[in-house]
Amino acid sequence: MKISRVTAYDLRFPLPAAAGSDAVHLNPVYSLAACVLEADDGTLGTGFTLTLGTGNDLVCEAIRYQRDAVLGGDPDELLAELGTRWHSWANEGQLRWLGPHKGVVHLALAAIVGGLTDLWAKKKQVPLWQGLLEMSPEQVTALIDFSTIDDYLSPEEAIELLETRSLGAEATKAQLDRGYPAYDTSVGWLGYDKTLLVENVLVSKERGYGAVKIKVGSRNLASDVERLAAVREVLGSDALVMIDANQIWGVAGAIRAGKALAEFEPFWFEEPVHPDDLVGYLCVRDALAPMRIAGGEHIPNQVVFKNFLQRGALDVAQPDVVRLGGLPEYLAVALMAAKAGVPVLPHAGDMGQLHQHLIYFTRCRLGMPELPLEMIPHLREHFLEPCTIEHGRYVTPKSPGSSSGLRPESINRFAWRATTPSGHPERL
Amino acid sequence: MKISRVTAYDLRFPLPAAAGSDAVHLNPVYSLAACVLEADDGTLGTGFTLTLGTGNDLVCEAIRYQRDAVLGGDPDELLAELGTRWHSWANEGQLRWLGPHKGVVHLALAAIVGGLTDLWAKKKQVPLWQGLLEMSPEQVTALIDFSTIDDYLSPEEAIELLETRSLGAEATKAQLDRGYPAYDTSVGWLGYDKTLLVENVLVSKERGYGAVKIKVGSRNLASDVERLAAVREVLGSDALVMIDANQIWGVAGAIRAGKALAEFEPFWFEEPVHPDDLVGYLCVRDALAPMRIAGGEHIPNQVVFKNFLQRGALDVAQPDVVRLGGLPEYLAVALMAAKAGVPVLPHAGDMGQLHQHLIYFTRCRLGMPELPLEMIPHLREHFLEPCTIEHGRYVTPKSPGSSSGLRPESINRFAWRATTPSGHPERL
Repeated sequence: MKISRVTAYDLRFPLPAAAGSDAVHLNPVYSLAACVLEADDGTLGTGFTLTLGTGNDLVCEAIRYQRDAVLGGDPDELLAELGTRWHSWANEGQLRWLGPHKGVVHLALAAIVGGLTDLWAKKKQVPLWQGLLEMSPEQVTALIDFSTIDDYLSPEEAIELLETRSLGAEATKAQLDRGYPAYDTSVGWLGYDKTLLVENVLVSKERGYGAVKIKVGSRNLASDVERLAAVREVLGSDALVMIDANQIWGVAGAIRAGKALAEFEPFWFEEPVHPDDLVGYLCVRDALAPMRIAGGEHIPNQVVFKNFLQRGALDVAQPDVVRLGGLPEYLAVALMAAKAGVPVLPHAGDMGQLHQHLIYFTRCRLGMPELPLEMIPHLREHFLEPCTIEHGRYVTPKSPGSSSGLRPESINRFAWRATTPSGHPERL
Repeated sequence: MKISRVTAYDLRFPLPAAAGSDAVHLNPVYSLAACVLEADDGTLGTGFTLTLGTGNDLVCEAIRYQRDAVLGGDPDELLAELGTRWHSWANEGQLRWLGPHKGVVHLALAAIVGGLTDLWAKKKQVPLWQGLLEMSPEQVTALIDFSTIDDYLSPEEAIELLETRSLGAEATKAQLDRGYPAYDTSVGWLGYDKTLLVENVLVSKERGYGAVKIKVGSRNLASDVERLAAVREVLGSDALVMIDANQIWGVAGAIRAGKALAEFEPFWFEEPVHPDDLVGYLCVRDALAPMRIAGGEHIPNQVVFKNFLQRGALDVAQPDVVRLGGLPEYLAVALMAAKAGVPVLPHAGDMGQLHQHLIYFTRCRLGMPELPLEMIPHLREHFLEPCTIEHGRYVTPKSPGSSSGLRPESINRFAWRATTPSGHPERL
């Protein structure tokens, strides 16, 4: 099998009013910069990153600049030494200056590597989770570029972690059979008023979710307090309620808010400050202990994750495979988090499509606790195989690939423009 | 005065063979994503960022997406509360997702704010350095967005630093009269063989430079040792010789190299590891003490600089105003560095054009030591007023503005394409 065509699609999907809104991102247009790899036998591998609208075309252009990474290659060969190849892709001398390893070019790499990952699993005729569970420790470590992290985690340590932390065959099978618990982020967008918020929370509870996430960072802290109090009241003390500030506060503001909200026992406090602010995270975490601090949705690469884990800044690591540079960095972060003893519960910038696979890697191969994985139910109608939630749990996907395939109707209807192999943007 | 037109130019300039090459960036094409603001009276303000070629168009497109920040505004009004405005520009909800505060969109903001800064100084009919020296401490702090750094530096502390660290009128005048010492980076690109390197170093010495920078990170450490030994031999023990690894090494590799090169007494060791790796910088610095560690060319924003300075990871801070989000972040970094007691010696991604102004802010208003400022003599022929070096010193510029204006002939000849106010890219 050879990759004969690489196409980028700029897809922009309208959302219902206030959906997706948080303290910092007031008016998001959920958009996918999608990368479709077409193999010579017609098989399609799809990868994407999520943006919030403006500039999604820049990511698509950056996909075009990087598509030679995979064009003409065989998925098996590319995957076999992915760590080495990824290193050279991510360090292309001219594009690298636009990062390095962050921003538009890195998001584009996520989409390309996502397409490759999907195609590889389809060629193997297995769901991505199965492909990852079947790899030897050595095969897993060959997917990773250790050059920037080996002062914290060497390939040998990674192999040892994989050898010693596995749940074992029986427990893995049981886990796959019962699926994986989800938490519902869509109840509590910041643009929803308190009445709608409470209604949503009740619907979510009826549907079987045992955990929800509420956006905080309202104009007045009193409003956050009131909203969280209302949610805690209707859900009772057993439900897990996460809060997410989406980076709105400085260190003092985050500490003040965390103290005001502590009485409602949030299960974690997510993105209290700017995502680059390692020292800020440490200050907030110290001041609010034992409140758990979560972050990672905007940690751009494995280097920054390494620093956050080395210094103990996170109680929950939230890498997002569609914001990191794809599978190699995701696995690197998972292994470093395992070493640090920090659970990995990804941010669902992929709407859960990919992470419903990857969660079995961290749960079954690294023995992480069965804490709930984010679920954002937007864009479901655009995926060929949207993830299935039953009684608040992800049902383990069975089809080959990474569940990233997009419906042709959606591509046609919502394409802003496509970048063809000839390099000319065109309206589909 | 009103800004009536904002145009982005994608300019790509061929360099002589091996010029600009380092351990990571092997084949750079020095490119400017330039932003020209045209005022209703015909005055032009120019800003730019530097890229290494591929993807320069992405930055130009991102300028287009952000040009409403300044379009229709008055330079004085925009500058008066720049900190507040910059905060809203840098946090636009949809584009922010592509960073935040890093990568293509942040580089574009640097170009826009650069254009505004140039126009403001031209309107005042003063060189940028003079505009900055004449501001009150309160006016300086109003240029800065403190929201992400006030846990380390408050506006009040910034004002106190400006009030207490100034050189005073007499010493400032003497400094401006004698210009500012430069060091020559163009002698030692990694693609130059040892013979050419030594020749260049001798020419540089004859021209009056007392300091040079040598790229390291050759395929073999022995080659780095040999090259640095040759340079030290021809320059003698008094000359300052900086070494720059441009992020090629991991922590262990950087420590090994630093130990091997220490006997030649480099004045500093620049970018030993990945620019995001704060913990890595600390390890390298500890292991190689008392060797000075320099970095900042690829530190993307004031938040990461804050962390590096809070933790003492740098002996020399090298912010680059054309890679940070323009003047507000540059000033924030300078003030934080003053608090930390770390000298600021910018990376000359601007070829020295802007930093020859900004250096007088750090030297004369913050009392930083008179250590040499980087000089990269490429692209001189494309600037309307290229900086002047005499006897190894920058001659203080006299013309109004920030010395960023580009020759129309160069724009015409080297424009890849321009983005017009109508939004359509066109070949000039």
